Amino acid sequence: MFSYQPPLKDIRFVLSELLDASATLSQLPTYAEVDDELTMQVAEEAGRFASEVLFPLNAVGDREGCRYENGAVTTPPGFADAYRQFQEAGWPALACDPNYGGQGLPNTLNSVLYEMLSSCNHAWTMYPGLLHGAYACLHKHASEELKQRYLPRIVSGEWLATMCLTESQAGSDLGLLRTRAVPQDDGSVRITGSKIFISGGEQDITENIVHLVLARLPDAPAGSKGISLFLVPKYLPEGDGLGKRNAVACTGLEHKMGIHGSATSSLQFDEAVGWLVGEPNRGLAAMFVMMNAARLAVGIQGLGSAETAYQNSLAYAQERLQMRAAVRPAQRRGEPADPIVMHPAMQRLLMNQRAYVEGFRMLAYHSALALDMAEQHPDAQVRADMDAQLALLTPIIKSMMTDQGFYGSSQALQIYGGHGFITETGIEQYLRDSRIAMIYEGTNEIQAVDLLLRKILADSGQRLNQLLGQVEATAEQEGKGPMQGHAEGLATLAREIRDRVERIAAAAQANPELPHQVAPEMLRLVGHCVIAWFWLRAAAVARKNAFQDPIFYQAKQDTARYYYDFILPETTQQLQIVDNVLRSAAEGRPLPLLSDVMRQYAEPED
Amino acid sequence: MFSYQPPLKDIRFVLSELLDASATLSQLPTYAEVDDELTMQVAEEAGRFASEVLFPLNAVGDREGCRYENGAVTTPPGFADAYRQFQEAGWPALACDPNYGGQGLPNTLNSVLYEMLSSCNHAWTMYPGLLHGAYACLHKHASEELKQRYLPRIVSGEWLATMCLTESQAGSDLGLLRTRAVPQDDGSVRITGSKIFISGGEQDITENIVHLVLARLPDAPAGSKGISLFLVPKYLPEGDGLGKRNAVACTGLEHKMGIHGSATSSLQFDEAVGWLVGEPNRGLAAMFVMMNAARLAVGIQGLGSAETAYQNSLAYAQERLQMRAAVRPAQRRGEPADPIVMHPAMQRLLMNQRAYVEGFRMLAYHSALALDMAEQHPDAQVRADMDAQLALLTPIIKSMMTDQGFYGSSQALQIYGGHGFITETGIEQYLRDSRIAMIYEGTNEIQAVDLLLRKILADSGQRLNQLLGQVEATAEQEGKGPMQGHAEGLATLAREIRDRVERIAAAAQANPELPHQVAPEMLRLVGHCVIAWFWLRAAAVARKNAFQDPIFYQAKQDTARYYYDFILPETTQQLQIVDNVLRSAAEGRPLPLLSDVMRQYAEPED
Repeated sequence: MFSYQPPLKDIRFVLSELLDASATLSQLPTYAEVDDELTMQVAEEAGRFASEVLFPLNAVGDREGCRYENGAVTTPPGFADAYRQFQEAGWPALACDPNYGGQGLPNTLNSVLYEMLSSCNHAWTMYPGLLHGAYACLHKHASEELKQRYLPRIVSGEWLATMCLTESQAGSDLGLLRTRAVPQDDGSVRITGSKIFISGGEQDITENIVHLVLARLPDAPAGSKGISLFLVPKYLPEGDGLGKRNAVACTGLEHKMGIHGSATSSLQFDEAVGWLVGEPNRGLAAMFVMMNAARLAVGIQGLGSAETAYQNSLAYAQERLQMRAAVRPAQRRGEPADPIVMHPAMQRLLMNQRAYVEGFRMLAYHSALALDMAEQHPDAQVRADMDAQLALLTPIIKSMMTDQGFYGSSQALQIYGGHGFITETGIEQYLRDSRIAMIYEGTNEIQAVDLLLRKILADSGQRLNQLLGQVEATAEQEGKGPMQGHAEGLATLAREIRDRVERIAAAAQANPELPHQVAPEMLRLVGHCVIAWFWLRAAAVARKNAFQDPIFYQAKQDTARYYYDFILPETTQQLQIVDNVLRSAAEGRPLPLLSDVMRQYAEPED
Repeated sequence: MFSYQPPLKDIRFVLSELLDASATLSQLPTYAEVDDELTMQVAEEAGRFASEVLFPLNAVGDREGCRYENGAVTTPPGFADAYRQFQEAGWPALACDPNYGGQGLPNTLNSVLYEMLSSCNHAWTMYPGLLHGAYACLHKHASEELKQRYLPRIVSGEWLATMCLTESQAGSDLGLLRTRAVPQDDGSVRITGSKIFISGGEQDITENIVHLVLARLPDAPAGSKGISLFLVPKYLPEGDGLGKRNAVACTGLEHKMGIHGSATSSLQFDEAVGWLVGEPNRGLAAMFVMMNAARLAVGIQGLGSAETAYQNSLAYAQERLQMRAAVRPAQRRGEPADPIVMHPAMQRLLMNQRAYVEGFRMLAYHSALALDMAEQHPDAQVRADMDAQLALLTPIIKSMMTDQGFYGSSQALQIYGGHGFITETGIEQYLRDSRIAMIYEGTNEIQAVDLLLRKILADSGQRLNQLLGQVEATAEQEGKGPMQGHAEGLATLAREIRDRVERIAAAAQANPELPHQVAPEMLRLVGHCVIAWFWLRAAAVARKNAFQDPIFYQAKQDTARYYYDFILPETTQQLQIVDNVLRSAAEGRPLPLLSDVMRQYAEPED
């Protein structure tokens, strides 16, 4: 039976033992009340809601999907009711400003919540998934009037929100978008244009929807510097209630590989009433507040999928009896077959999943904590440092965690064998649902370019060196213990990364395409370095606390070793690819990619 | 628009220029008539059938699926008609013995046919996909009487065939199967039991179905040594027609992640009439004839999926305009955006796909040719050598090609961005359909164990060394040309593999689980070594023939370099993992996998 157990023990390990999150949080004035007890209480309640309310709706949502008729959308049975429970429990307000009705708890706890929601029901989680980003964006950029009118409804979850970015000709490249906004005398605008791929663009869950729409003002500059952000409600608020319906219509839903329960809508704006958020032509910057939060959230979706896939494949591997293990304990020698978890091939697939899931959980919560500090720390330098670190970690989180959501689900499916391919088993839905996360909120290819070009090379590696310095400090600290070999490996990796960044920066002068060619490798190199850093710290903590629970902490140390012995070697591959590209460039014969196809775009030869 | 162009130019390159297949085949007495013209004529006709008849049915089959009602199965609209055309054109008989109505053409041509069928419609191809294996199995093991009665109908494709192996408790481990066969006085048996996951177990395409069923005779030894193979027709033949319906009933169809058009049936045998094929209790050996053919065919399915995914993502990348390229030719500088194929991130995804697809095509056709030689060569030593090589190549083909069918489809989907996740685009079906091939006909994990334990370690590396010797000869031959660096890299890799095999064999004495732990790495090491061997040869041929078509042959040489620079580095990762495992074992502290979970199976401590 497919199921979900909230991984509270590991969450406690990460938050309390590894990161000492409560101590950090309670030093921030806003979160002075936060302690371990509160943290774990929230985690337990979130786990209960996710596993008891959302998980049972997951297969239903996949099977029934959303229905579209005459502009109206019906979400799968149970989705709206689950949302009502979510709202009544106050979850939307968790990490929001008390001035607008929020509970004023840290982002860190919101991350714990969203990991579990995503683990249980990716499609459902899409509906409230943009709430916090919309909240953050409006909180920072909207006028006080707009805030007063909309924020309390968003914070309470009474109204859901969308991000209306994509148009059919403008996906990764928002500079190409064509939706227009015409200012009116009353300070509002009229929005006209078509948007696609709008998650929750229409639904029957909340009575109103707040669309955040990118569009162009008249005479705006071409490209991404001419985009502004607008707030466009489905119904115009009137007094405390709703006034007339705005001119935004849902024209259809997409049929998708996965997340069938999420209403992926096409929207038509036809002189819809809206209001500018932030500065004219600075819409991308305003939206980026939302997008960065969304990228962390999407990474956490990947973690959530990977966790459920891992849990279930581990349980199945203990139930399913096939073949005799290579080494059999005496008491099993009469049995016709052993649980497949006894076969090293299955153990490898399981340990791979575990090492990534637990490694990513450390990274995710560390980053959420960094976000809390970046937002709330009294010391401006600390805020800036945390911002700088998040700038590096965000593309890694978005890309590597969503990759693992998908590949981890695929590894889990493999453990189920033929049964994994059957719908009713449950795992194949995770594979289909998780696939989208590698694409939306900036494809994983764009994340790699973002990391190497905009986050590393753009400041000559300063932010990166600061992070690597912390990694090296840990490596030195652990350099004499039982993890000595691994600590040395980590220090070497950090050095190799510094070296390649310098060489890539130098080579890019003559060959501007070169950094783009090796961006995927550099993302995984830095990502593995960071995860290896956490595993080294986790092993140290586990060693220290081993007496409390020898089995758990021994497994933690073994998983750290597994990560170093079986997963980190991927970095040798990436280093060699980077070196091959650098060598070819140095020899003056860079490899032309798709030479036959690219001829059509080449300069005509004279 | 999703589409398919038969890759005839590359097929000709591989068969005619790289492998000189006609020359090899025409030296075999059976295939004396085969020449390049005949070969390409067959390829062209196969490509026409696949692209014109099958490809248009692919999305329909996915959408409509198979329907089950009261024991009867309705396949998707058009499937039965397409099969009639397939049969009338004589395709089932292509590589069969003329004594039973076959056309007597080589397996090599059958592989070309099945690559294209799989490219166009994986689900449909499942129906005739087992014909050739069933033919080969019966041809080798059945009594002359059974052959006379059944083979002509199978060869002509009038009746389709199934492999009835899996039971709910017996998947990878057929030794656990429970279906019983009770001998009758007339020499027949009565079969009773339940089978699941039977592809084409029931359908409305052919009037009769020939089931090849694994079952146990009374008093058979336990486990896999007590399994016999039986032929069980859906209708009992009578004279030239059909007699009464046999007691085999379809009890349902599975709902699956993909290949919706393939009827994955549960079958109930209830004292069904059958006949023994081959020796009692030697059913697995007889079935293995079918299974080895099926594993090559499944590998080719992966190649077929990967080819279509590659073609379409390449076409889309040239159509879709997003962002400005890092380097822009003068004539594009006024354009708001460039085709995404100009972005290195997309080029990497495309070159990866291309290097694998073209590399695997060389491996697939080489192996099909080896199969023809193994079957038909007059010299027994050549036959034995070819058999030995196929024993090594089969698990590599099955595993690496099906991995790429799936991961390649995923890379292609990524190029489509959000549009790739939408059903009507077409690519997501390839991802879903191709996933099963990593599981059926022996999971890819089982292939790895098969290669390392049964094919390499079992004969102390003899077969492997013979293959590596050929690789090294090519490396030496190309060692002074422009591929010198790559030739040296290939020779080094071959040496490293020999060395690791020796060390694994030595370490396995004390630690029998060790080879199982590193089997996945060893499979990909040997696999990459073989593909790199082909790429070295392909580059040499392309260089020689460059004057004929400079663009095509330059691209071929570039792709060879891409393979060496960007893909082969994966082997450094695998070598390091193997080394880590060997080192831990040598230090007497092998890493326990899942130590916490495995405690329950450990010997009780005294």
